[in-house]
Amino acid sequence: MKTLVIVSHPDVQGSNSQQFLKESLPVSEDITYHHLETTYPDENINRQAEQALLVAHDRIIFQFPLYWYSSPPLLKKWQDEVLTEGFAYGVGGQALVGKELGLVLTVGIAEQAYQAGGAEQFALSQLLIPYQAVANKVGMRFLAPFAIHQFQYMTEREQQALLIRYQQYMTLPDLSLSARVNWFIEQLEAEADSFEMDQVIDVIEDLQLEIDEMRLHLNYGGR
Amino acid sequence: MKTLVIVSHPDVQGSNSQQFLKESLPVSEDITYHHLETTYPDENINRQAEQALLVAHDRIIFQFPLYWYSSPPLLKKWQDEVLTEGFAYGVGGQALVGKELGLVLTVGIAEQAYQAGGAEQFALSQLLIPYQAVANKVGMRFLAPFAIHQFQYMTEREQQALLIRYQQYMTLPDLSLSARVNWFIEQLEAEADSFEMDQVIDVIEDLQLEIDEMRLHLNYGGR
Repeated sequence: MKTLVIVSHPDVQGSNSQQFLKESLPVSEDITYHHLETTYPDENINRQAEQALLVAHDRIIFQFPLYWYSSPPLLKKWQDEVLTEGFAYGVGGQALVGKELGLVLTVGIAEQAYQAGGAEQFALSQLLIPYQAVANKVGMRFLAPFAIHQFQYMTEREQQALLIRYQQYMTLPDLSLSARVNWFIEQLEAEADSFEMDQVIDVIEDLQLEIDEMRLHLNYGGR
Repeated sequence: MKTLVIVSHPDVQGSNSQQFLKESLPVSEDITYHHLETTYPDENINRQAEQALLVAHDRIIFQFPLYWYSSPPLLKKWQDEVLTEGFAYGVGGQALVGKELGLVLTVGIAEQAYQAGGAEQFALSQLLIPYQAVANKVGMRFLAPFAIHQFQYMTEREQQALLIRYQQYMTLPDLSLSARVNWFIEQLEAEADSFEMDQVIDVIEDLQLEIDEMRLHLNYGGR
């Protein structure tokens, strides 16, 4: 599986979270990092080159800071100019069918603000519907978004857990819980030396939390 | 009431619908037409001038073609650069509180596509949540969006009815049905000669339709 990470950030060098994510990307022929503002300082997007990139990858990630509930303007320009009729939709527009669309968002505000009655009033699942609609229109499978809230307040342990989840989002064909557990076991077996026990514990705690949440939902469902 | 119409369209001269809307705007000191791509061909937005414009108006309209379920990139850039902390939100950021935010959208696809199970899968009310969230964040009242579907297929009579509804959206402090009826009666009395009977009939039919719909909802509600 080949993953294309399309990053849009007006000041990617000055962003701690974007630098952390860039360094977290596994070095692999299967992952292409593509920062739009660096590639196109004059904002003249090369449609043909962009469409060729899309065709050559299976999982497409839009990675950006959530400004006013959407992407920076250059990614929007990219959408308008690259996802053309006859390529992405309409007659003959089948180039993206069956691929995956994922979002990696850095968000300055805490997660609990994004709900009815919270400061932001709307959930990310509502605010990101325009991207879900893009996936629908071009025949892509929309992945559950990967939202990173308040990176600047994360402890080192939280950052390590983030790194692992981010690598999984980039590389795992199957993002289900059991697939992620298997991936982690394989990583442990292959590179036991490069992990610290803290990290291992964090990941296991993370998994435990997810399992607990699932149990909770099952209980609610059974009432 | 002063209305600011912020238009974003990469080729406003070549757009029949945008030209129609521009010509439909009542000539009035209370209405400011502001096309971003004309004002800023180099995309260097003058934050201070834009913020002064916002302060000087009561109803702010974003008028744009719906591309990929959102605005053209320059309006997004405008949002990111003009709606700053300390002006629009955060400590001291009260400049927009109590104003209104409206959207005028030209949409290439028919209205019935925008629903669950329709070709676009999502309703405009869902796709436009990011704008509703902007209004929420800055303390503005979000007006029901004014969506113009498939302008190119409209008959002349439909265009005339559109013109009247558009003028109301721009000028009427109260957009309720009864306020719009009163507005229309006043227009008829003041400028009876400039209306043709066709237009009058269209508007009355329009109103009748709305009343019928309301009756329907009332009936459903009573079941």
